[in-house]
Amino acid sequence: MADLFVALIHHPVVNRNGEIVTSAITSLDIHDIARAARTYDVRGVFIVHPIPEQRNFAASVIEHWRFDFGRAHDSRRREALELVQIVADLDEAISAAEKAARKRPLIVHTSAQTVGGASYASLRERMSQPDAPPMMLLLGTGFGMAPEVAARADIVLAPILGPTDYNHLSVRSAAGIILDRLRGH
Amino acid sequence: MADLFVALIHHPVVNRNGEIVTSAITSLDIHDIARAARTYDVRGVFIVHPIPEQRNFAASVIEHWRFDFGRAHDSRRREALELVQIVADLDEAISAAEKAARKRPLIVHTSAQTVGGASYASLRERMSQPDAPPMMLLLGTGFGMAPEVAARADIVLAPILGPTDYNHLSVRSAAGIILDRLRGH
Repeated sequence: MADLFVALIHHPVVNRNGEIVTSAITSLDIHDIARAARTYDVRGVFIVHPIPEQRNFAASVIEHWRFDFGRAHDSRRREALELVQIVADLDEAISAAEKAARKRPLIVHTSAQTVGGASYASLRERMSQPDAPPMMLLLGTGFGMAPEVAARADIVLAPILGPTDYNHLSVRSAAGIILDRLRGH
Repeated sequence: MADLFVALIHHPVVNRNGEIVTSAITSLDIHDIARAARTYDVRGVFIVHPIPEQRNFAASVIEHWRFDFGRAHDSRRREALELVQIVADLDEAISAAEKAARKRPLIVHTSAQTVGGASYASLRERMSQPDAPPMMLLLGTGFGMAPEVAARADIVLAPILGPTDYNHLSVRSAAGIILDRLRGH
């Protein structure tokens, strides 16, 4: 099975007006995505933020569970957070994934706004091949990743759809659903 | 398609030691589950909490988006929160669902601890029948619902599994994944 990585992008993302901004890190994003990643055998989760103070905040969320409260309190949560690395930009995430998997990952873009896009079944099939390359799923915060991030993708995944036209899931929900579609039993 | 409801249970639930407790309401649970419910055409989301102060807190989370900030700010979030009702116990949720659907809902229990349980495919098939009864998915907070809640279930759904033995998703993630398995396209 392909080595799978997840990168949560906080910059460049768009706001509700389509302007390029930097979003703030949300601690529950880290927790929920780490737990989903651990469930679905993801090799590493990258929290991508260009601002050092925000990276320090993310580190403090993890350290809290890793060394103090979490050690005595909830070892399964700590176990999930051990997958998390905090990096300044996507290139740093890609380099770290390449080092871990010994091969550069294919970049898989996800967005609720995609028209068409690769099906989950096709990507699942591709990931299950014995010679499948490592892959890195990009998840956008705010109102989604800026177009320049999408331009770097090797694969653009179809949006998550239900029976309605409503496509405003939280990134926490979307992460779990995407991983389940790709790796669920 | 069957009318589907979701009930988020804060009492009786168990803590990490298996003791029966009442969990606190988390505002992001309400937001994430409402948005997933709106995506997957859920008819109503019930936030179940026995303590009036906690119900007032949940109401304030919703009112903030419904009337003030949300109206100008993010109408799609408001649209999801309109599905949410706050009730004191499961019986009140069942009565409200019965009133909306004109038929008493079947109670569908979910837990990461279930051994066996009905498959998602079988429940999805059953829900798609023209004469399918309304159903209410129970989601537990804390470390899961107390056994006395499970005892009320008509259907016990299988746990969500990935390729690992880790089964500690957040209730926010689990809600999205379960709805996607039952109603995703």
